[in-house]
Amino acid sequence: MTSSFARPIRYGMIGGGRNALIGSIHRIAAKMDGNFELVAGALSSEAERAKASAADLGLSPERGYATYEEMANAESGRTDGIEAVVICTPNHVHAGPAIAFLNAGVHVICDKPLTATLEEAEELHSIAKASDKVFVLTHNYTGYPMVREARSRVLSGELGEIRLVQVEYPQDWLAKPLENTDHKQADWRTDPARSGPGGCVADIGTHAFHLARFVSGLGVDRISAELTSFVPGRPLDDNVHAMLKFENGARGMLWASQVAPGHENGLRVRIYGERAGLEWVQADPNYLWLAELDQPRVQITRGGHGSGADAARYIRVPAGHPEGYFEAFATIYTEAAAAIRACDAGESIPDDLLQPGIEDGLEGMRFIYACLESSRKSSAWVDLEN
Amino acid sequence: MTSSFARPIRYGMIGGGRNALIGSIHRIAAKMDGNFELVAGALSSEAERAKASAADLGLSPERGYATYEEMANAESGRTDGIEAVVICTPNHVHAGPAIAFLNAGVHVICDKPLTATLEEAEELHSIAKASDKVFVLTHNYTGYPMVREARSRVLSGELGEIRLVQVEYPQDWLAKPLENTDHKQADWRTDPARSGPGGCVADIGTHAFHLARFVSGLGVDRISAELTSFVPGRPLDDNVHAMLKFENGARGMLWASQVAPGHENGLRVRIYGERAGLEWVQADPNYLWLAELDQPRVQITRGGHGSGADAARYIRVPAGHPEGYFEAFATIYTEAAAAIRACDAGESIPDDLLQPGIEDGLEGMRFIYACLESSRKSSAWVDLEN
Amino acid sequence: MTSSFARPIRYGMIGGGRNALIGSIHRIAAKMDGNFELVAGALSSEAERAKASAADLGLSPERGYATYEEMANAESGRTDGIEAVVICTPNHVHAGPAIAFLNAGVHVICDKPLTATLEEAEELHSIAKASDKVFVLTHNYTGYPMVREARSRVLSGELGEIRLVQVEYPQDWLAKPLENTDHKQADWRTDPARSGPGGCVADIGTHAFHLARFVSGLGVDRISAELTSFVPGRPLDDNVHAMLKFENGARGMLWASQVAPGHENGLRVRIYGERAGLEWVQADPNYLWLAELDQPRVQITRGGHGSGADAARYIRVPAGHPEGYFEAFATIYTEAAAAIRACDAGESIPDDLLQPGIEDGLEGMRFIYACLESSRKSSAWVDLEN
Amino acid sequence: MTSSFARPIRYGMIGGGRNALIGSIHRIAAKMDGNFELVAGALSSEAERAKASAADLGLSPERGYATYEEMANAESGRTDGIEAVVICTPNHVHAGPAIAFLNAGVHVICDKPLTATLEEAEELHSIAKASDKVFVLTHNYTGYPMVREARSRVLSGELGEIRLVQVEYPQDWLAKPLENTDHKQADWRTDPARSGPGGCVADIGTHAFHLARFVSGLGVDRISAELTSFVPGRPLDDNVHAMLKFENGARGMLWASQVAPGHENGLRVRIYGERAGLEWVQADPNYLWLAELDQPRVQITRGGHGSGADAARYIRVPAGHPEGYFEAFATIYTEAAAAIRACDAGESIPDDLLQPGIEDGLEGMRFIYACLESSRKSSAWVDLEN
Repeated sequence: MTSSFARPIRYGMIGGGRNALIGSIHRIAAKMDGNFELVAGALSSEAERAKASAADLGLSPERGYATYEEMANAESGRTDGIEAVVICTPNHVHAGPAIAFLNAGVHVICDKPLTATLEEAEELHSIAKASDKVFVLTHNYTGYPMVREARSRVLSGELGEIRLVQVEYPQDWLAKPLENTDHKQADWRTDPARSGPGGCVADIGTHAFHLARFVSGLGVDRISAELTSFVPGRPLDDNVHAMLKFENGARGMLWASQVAPGHENGLRVRIYGERAGLEWVQADPNYLWLAELDQPRVQITRGGHGSGADAARYIRVPAGHPEGYFEAFATIYTEAAAAIRACDAGESIPDDLLQPGIEDGLEGMRFIYACLESSRKSSAWVDLEN
Repeated sequence: MTSSFARPIRYGMIGGGRNALIGSIHRIAAKMDGNFELVAGALSSEAERAKASAADLGLSPERGYATYEEMANAESGRTDGIEAVVICTPNHVHAGPAIAFLNAGVHVICDKPLTATLEEAEELHSIAKASDKVFVLTHNYTGYPMVREARSRVLSGELGEIRLVQVEYPQDWLAKPLENTDHKQADWRTDPARSGPGGCVADIGTHAFHLARFVSGLGVDRISAELTSFVPGRPLDDNVHAMLKFENGARGMLWASQVAPGHENGLRVRIYGERAGLEWVQADPNYLWLAELDQPRVQITRGGHGSGADAARYIRVPAGHPEGYFEAFATIYTEAAAAIRACDAGESIPDDLLQPGIEDGLEGMRFIYACLESSRKSSAWVDLEN
Repeated sequence: MTSSFARPIRYGMIGGGRNALIGSIHRIAAKMDGNFELVAGALSSEAERAKASAADLGLSPERGYATYEEMANAESGRTDGIEAVVICTPNHVHAGPAIAFLNAGVHVICDKPLTATLEEAEELHSIAKASDKVFVLTHNYTGYPMVREARSRVLSGELGEIRLVQVEYPQDWLAKPLENTDHKQADWRTDPARSGPGGCVADIGTHAFHLARFVSGLGVDRISAELTSFVPGRPLDDNVHAMLKFENGARGMLWASQVAPGHENGLRVRIYGERAGLEWVQADPNYLWLAELDQPRVQITRGGHGSGADAARYIRVPAGHPEGYFEAFATIYTEAAAAIRACDAGESIPDDLLQPGIEDGLEGMRFIYACLESSRKSSAWVDLEN
Repeated sequence: MTSSFARPIRYGMIGGGRNALIGSIHRIAAKMDGNFELVAGALSSEAERAKASAADLGLSPERGYATYEEMANAESGRTDGIEAVVICTPNHVHAGPAIAFLNAGVHVICDKPLTATLEEAEELHSIAKASDKVFVLTHNYTGYPMVREARSRVLSGELGEIRLVQVEYPQDWLAKPLENTDHKQADWRTDPARSGPGGCVADIGTHAFHLARFVSGLGVDRISAELTSFVPGRPLDDNVHAMLKFENGARGMLWASQVAPGHENGLRVRIYGERAGLEWVQADPNYLWLAELDQPRVQITRGGHGSGADAARYIRVPAGHPEGYFEAFATIYTEAAAAIRACDAGESIPDDLLQPGIEDGLEGMRFIYACLESSRKSSAWVDLEN
């Protein structure tokens, strides 16, 4: 990975203050490749915490805002105002700031899922499409070099026609009613008012679904799903079983769970074509397993022999030295920066940038709703309208 | 594993002659623990091959029969006639010999699935139930010590109430139309006349289903399935996707495939309860992974620390020295021998013997038919009547 | 693996009675491929136990002997006397019966190490060389198909000139003074009177050494070793560190330990040439890892794609179904049978039989003594005279 | 990992310009936790390249220096001059800049090994000890959370008295004479004039040695080594075999190699005490394997259950999301920053900071020289004077 110097993009952050989990991850990812500089924030829905969080991060006091509306207003009036905003709030506070900043002429980088509800998603989608600003959705797993390698091999036809996609994302952190303790992350993720009508299906099911789509390059036509809430009293699903039909006739299974003891973040994708299969596991992300028919299995390592150009673009350290979650996340940011710079320069956005965007976001919401509908209808096959 | 000497049980074999795959496996498994002695056989449906195969195995020439009917007749007339018969023919030649030998007063050890059709299965089931002879079905994977360990931990309540069962059995050997070459195994397994109406679902789907049942100790109430034939011209399914509802409310997924490049015999079962999860993989069968909530994952080894009494009963070599497929298969035979000896002694069959039997066989056939029906009905949930 | 019928070789066993560990392993291995039939035994040094053990195994009462001398005498006088003897006693009772049975015209299959002392080994070596009978030493790990595959690839020159051999065999069962409890296996293995002057180096160091020699096909010229007894009061070494110089200039390291917590039987060999490297691990024996320079690592499975003819000779079940310790052990027996039959037929022993023999046994004893000498001499390099 | 805001430390870099490998790694590591800001550099020994490299990094033109002497001089005269310098040049250009900047009152962060020669190391050691500035050596592997976890468990006595340490660092990149191509990294590493008298032993042997020391907390008294140059014409060793005696009587083996096909950066450490053993592998750094005697092996994950406080201090993302090489490297920088700030505040450096320093550097050089001496003396045991 090489680069010549470019001025970092000034950005602000919505959410991500003290005690937030994902804010510091976004900040490290944003600065890793030197493309972004944090200058402003509305870092908490509580004004005191927002101010304190801004101080923690060394922001100028006047750029630590109490609300995103205030921030959108103030920053758009500054000559050194933010060029991009990062939204890392609970789901129900995605659409509001995203629309506000797009309207203020600020590029948007938003955490997933796109919104809490499909209605919000459709509105945001319309506005983003009509906007001349860049919209990036941080389905960060697609930034892993070996995920890029997998996609590249699939799209090149190396596997032949794809027949099967098996994707899963098991976790165990909600196996007990953690939301009844004072656990901020569990609290909002199991609350329909903040998470939306999907629980597990929205929080990690969308990641699994997006990864299956990204690696296969195939659209999903129909879904048959069974959603379950295993923990008594939990109003949202904590386990998703689904079968998928892809546009080319391929079949798939998707499993996402928050109640599977032993799994921390067990995202795994396996894809099989007529001639070969691939396997990738997030916990061991520097490996890609390739099995060609009539050949022994091969372990391709990130940047090692057999690892190709699409992986190499975003590799920062030689093979055998593991990269991880931050580096994959940083790649989404680096592609976001490239898109933003192209946009700001009036150029078209390069085809080889693969960061997820507004279409992925809307599709993810349709996935959630299709799963919910199928599950209500005894796992009947439901169209995933595109 | 300890034992005192008992005279080996005389047995004959149906099928399993020259070029057969599974016959030699049965023979090694049968003799490993010293409980069975091969004395007769109708080893091939072709008379010449049957005779030559008998000579290969050192049988007395007169006990190498051309047909199973002839063998049943002749052996039942000898004072040193066979006490048990092992049936390892294609599916459509299970019911015939099984019924013939039960009627001749011979214990039956039969390969899976029970029969080619549900009708045959029901008839055989009736006859076996009415018979005073032992009927064993070689779902051999249940003989692995760490499968026994898993079952034991589940049934003891260590995992709490079971919530999820994820079972899969991918293979790749039929990814191409191998049946169009001169490949005996592929030929009959893809032929409805010999395999029955199920392809992959019958051949390995039943193994996966039985393992899920065995480890969980839970009945399956309903199945939603999608069966596919990926290889053009193949009349039977080569991929099975299914969702399961267990009697206690647990949910499951089952995947069996013959077209997944990179998988030889990738049988794996994962089971998750309220308090813990377990994982076992056939290719690495000496390990059982245990994950208790709030504890790190533990790798229990066959016979090692943490490996309990139910595994220990059938362990033949110290921990760290791998056992494999034959040893698991032999355990089914050793339990079959114990059942046969108890039966012949007029004793009731000990409760702690876990070899699969006629009920498992009938249930496996119902599983096949439920999958076929669900798949025909757009993956509608179908009852698995017990 | 295919075979036509041959009459089983009648054999007797020295040691291996009740409570013995290794006797039942030898018996299962001997019968697995149908080449041996147990008909006699001097199964314990205690007469009562010897008789009871013979009954356990269903031997004719008169062929359950109290001593090996009695057995050699009696069996050599019978027309149906044993053709081979299996010696699985503690080390100090190897040379005596081996010599007695060779002198009685009986083929010998002996557990490792060859003897307790180098003096005994040299005497036995002379007698065995002068004898026209077959002598087999059960360094059983060389029977694993993927060890055969590794050796075959090395000898074919695929790796180029060999540069490095790293072999290790850690265990943990003697990390505590188990010999002070009533533990039969620990008792004699830590007793110089029965084990000989080497402890760990004799018991498992010789296995590691033999495996390095077998896979590399290279002689070892010199050894620099450091032997340690970590457990207080233990008179024999329980840890071996050694550096090796091979005849071609290759270098190696050998580690054997009985005090390394977490290792059951962690035998592993890695070998590196100019162009490629290989890795094999006994606990996961169905895999061979191949790494060619400038290529990704490849996982060759037993009998799978890339697994060659030398592995295939002794494979009994398709790829993906694991074989283990018994099957590898059985291969040594099957090769022993082939050698015995060739010998008895007056033919020369086929070149492609690879079972270890008397030369390996003597070399193993020289290895032990060289390690002891080097360790006494501050790890000075000591010649391993051949 | 939490932190409140502190002004980033201004630093300059020596080496690390265009085409350099390690420079960008240092820069990412330095900024990851927000503690350092790059403001100056003498980024190449070629003036043109130095200037261009400075521009690539967005430095002020006047702060892109042609030589480190010039930089030391100029920066010490600025009120906004650098507070720390990072030296990431070939070994023979460590001592010079390190001394120059210490003398200029600048904290030093230096790549390993400390210097090219022991003489330089001793001089630098004297100066660093006499200086009131902080000196940090980037043995970066000690920054991995699970290495910290391992050390913490060892030092707490959980393993009991340590008996064995097995450490290895195999690579394969120099298996062919890469230095004869135009390969910058291979060129200087195989050149005694730039690398010093040690090749592999200096480049990665020191990492392995330091890791063994760090995890065990034990000093090494004596070394017996065998160094080899396998590639014809290579003037420096490319393989190191060594046996170690630790101060408490523990024994160890160390293997470092640049000619082991299949290994990218295969650093691994295993440590065994009376009561338990631990294993850690750099390629899969988020796992620590713990084996207590009489217990099954446990896989502790970074930040997961069982992962303790010493690991937690520097964890940036939840368990199951992999961290890697950069994050470990960043931890060294974060500890360096804490030490620098304490130093600049006139406080004593906190005991709980574990970044390697000048003593580790001198010891590493003594390790190199002891290996060289032992190897010259037929692997005689050589004291590692401390």
